Amino acid sequence: MTIREEQVLERIERARGRRARLRDDTIVLAHGSGGKATRTLVDAVFREAFANPVLDRMDDSARFAVNGVDLAFTTDSYVVSPLFFPGGDIGDLAVNGTVNDLAVAGATPLHLSAGFILEEGFPVESLRHITESMRAAAEAAGVDIVTGDTKVVQRGKADGCYISTSGVGVVTDPPSGALRPGDAVLVTGPIGEHGVTIMLARGELDLEADLASDTAPLGCLLAELRDACPGAVRRMRDATRGGVATVLNEIAADAGLAIAVDEGAVPVRPAVRGACELLGIDPMYVACEGRAVVVVAPEAEAAALAALRAHPLGAGAAVIAHVKDDPSGLVLLKTAFGGTRIVDLLAGDPLPRIC
Amino acid sequence: MTIREEQVLERIERARGRRARLRDDTIVLAHGSGGKATRTLVDAVFREAFANPVLDRMDDSARFAVNGVDLAFTTDSYVVSPLFFPGGDIGDLAVNGTVNDLAVAGATPLHLSAGFILEEGFPVESLRHITESMRAAAEAAGVDIVTGDTKVVQRGKADGCYISTSGVGVVTDPPSGALRPGDAVLVTGPIGEHGVTIMLARGELDLEADLASDTAPLGCLLAELRDACPGAVRRMRDATRGGVATVLNEIAADAGLAIAVDEGAVPVRPAVRGACELLGIDPMYVACEGRAVVVVAPEAEAAALAALRAHPLGAGAAVIAHVKDDPSGLVLLKTAFGGTRIVDLLAGDPLPRIC
Repeated sequence: MTIREEQVLERIERARGRRARLRDDTIVLAHGSGGKATRTLVDAVFREAFANPVLDRMDDSARFAVNGVDLAFTTDSYVVSPLFFPGGDIGDLAVNGTVNDLAVAGATPLHLSAGFILEEGFPVESLRHITESMRAAAEAAGVDIVTGDTKVVQRGKADGCYISTSGVGVVTDPPSGALRPGDAVLVTGPIGEHGVTIMLARGELDLEADLASDTAPLGCLLAELRDACPGAVRRMRDATRGGVATVLNEIAADAGLAIAVDEGAVPVRPAVRGACELLGIDPMYVACEGRAVVVVAPEAEAAALAALRAHPLGAGAAVIAHVKDDPSGLVLLKTAFGGTRIVDLLAGDPLPRIC
Repeated sequence: MTIREEQVLERIERARGRRARLRDDTIVLAHGSGGKATRTLVDAVFREAFANPVLDRMDDSARFAVNGVDLAFTTDSYVVSPLFFPGGDIGDLAVNGTVNDLAVAGATPLHLSAGFILEEGFPVESLRHITESMRAAAEAAGVDIVTGDTKVVQRGKADGCYISTSGVGVVTDPPSGALRPGDAVLVTGPIGEHGVTIMLARGELDLEADLASDTAPLGCLLAELRDACPGAVRRMRDATRGGVATVLNEIAADAGLAIAVDEGAVPVRPAVRGACELLGIDPMYVACEGRAVVVVAPEAEAAALAALRAHPLGAGAAVIAHVKDDPSGLVLLKTAFGGTRIVDLLAGDPLPRIC
């Protein structure tokens, strides 16, 4: 590392140490991006108001015990546009997203709730398609939708249909959470397919590609992984808004360690790469809805990769990075051209309403 | 009862026995009213798709056991307009509503989730007010908000802020559910205040009244009730959308018994009564957000009333009805003028976006 590089890293570390300050007076789309702006809003408004030890862990799911039973509990609201897209719709997206938030916590998803905000004039036939997708997704994930709510707002006060799903699961095999240098970082399949599919489905680009959303329930895949390398799974995250880059940043920051990514090892389908180049965005930041990032102990790397690849939803799994001592909290990318650059959290929002 | 009356009742019973058929092609505001149209939509679309034994009970909360622990789980989406109104805002409404759905199931509310759908341009200061209300409401109800989500949609795709809350509680003392003729039906306070407050806050009526929403957490009040008459509580419901009339209809239908209401015994504040007369609506159908309907065994009537009245949130409690054998599933109202009329579910929606 040159002296200049060291100074840059030092400045970044200092900046990250500062408490996030919310400078905006009004909500902007970037606050929903999953990147820096979201984090700032969450820290400055929600965590400030609701502070409690469970929330403060800021995991995909909240974890708590009730009468000795270790539960996971999570929620997500879905505002994806368009509602229907190749590979899925807002319905299976909502079920899979909630199931996956429970699965990456090492929980077995059990019961889901679904709240609908419908716009006056929304076709009942479309609603039936959505609920049928939800039913099929719930069946595939082995969960029941046990409670719900329906609200209707006037025309122009929503965009067809928004869905909020929450889920309860029982924690059976939580990841240890304790990363160490040398740990291997894997993705369970090619990245960015959901985000690019949504962009193309909006028709804003004059581009056609044979792409479909990767939306899928990850419970079984991650259970196979845990069985294949018991006790060696350090961390699991599903790479939704903000993509793999955002998840890696959060993992590195939580652990106070570095993650060194080998760009050439990151699986990206040619159609995704091509669309991203046209859009001027990095596939590392594009949302997946059926891909997880997992960190395993060094000795479990081969077994983890084999277990993932043996499952249909993990056929394209790859080792993409390793954990390093420093620079603490940062994600470095070794580019295909031999250089190294920092992969930071995005400030803005390349793709609004992706989920 | 005259022969004509008997014929009318018979016709109503036959109509109720028929399976609800959804005739609408598109969603209308009435589908969010909590009345007949909501029930038809829920039956024809959601229950049809998601059918499972827990959902099919159609309680305010879903109940299920996880490793032997009896849990309650509920969700609600809030789209109230305006967001701020005398006595509360969308924030405490969302927390209290979810807490109350757990409390009426005989559960101790424990943990809440909160999902926010924000419109681009929404003032951060307003969001802070809302989260502060949620914090205070959660504190008052003894629950933590442990997980959440934030989405942002473009201008014109929401109405400032929508909130979906879900809650998990542990079931400690569930009502028996088994109603019997002679049981007493109580409300925990004057009805219709929330709904009328929202109507007046919209400024659509040139009317001022010294009214505030009754939004409040009912956990403590209902725990006191259960302590005062152990084993004698048959049923508890919070009277939100559709008001006390809708809740009574659902209780009567579930039990296959009749409920005979004494109109003169129903507590309604003069300002609510006056506003309802101007609006041409019956206060029995107007939403409360801090009132419950409870059914207790005949011998517990006096103790239940005394226990409710001893608590600040139940000071205006009253016995309003008794359970009768027949006409099965119907709610009858003995009017102040000595007549009797049937109180049916409303087909339409007198007050959209009330919660």
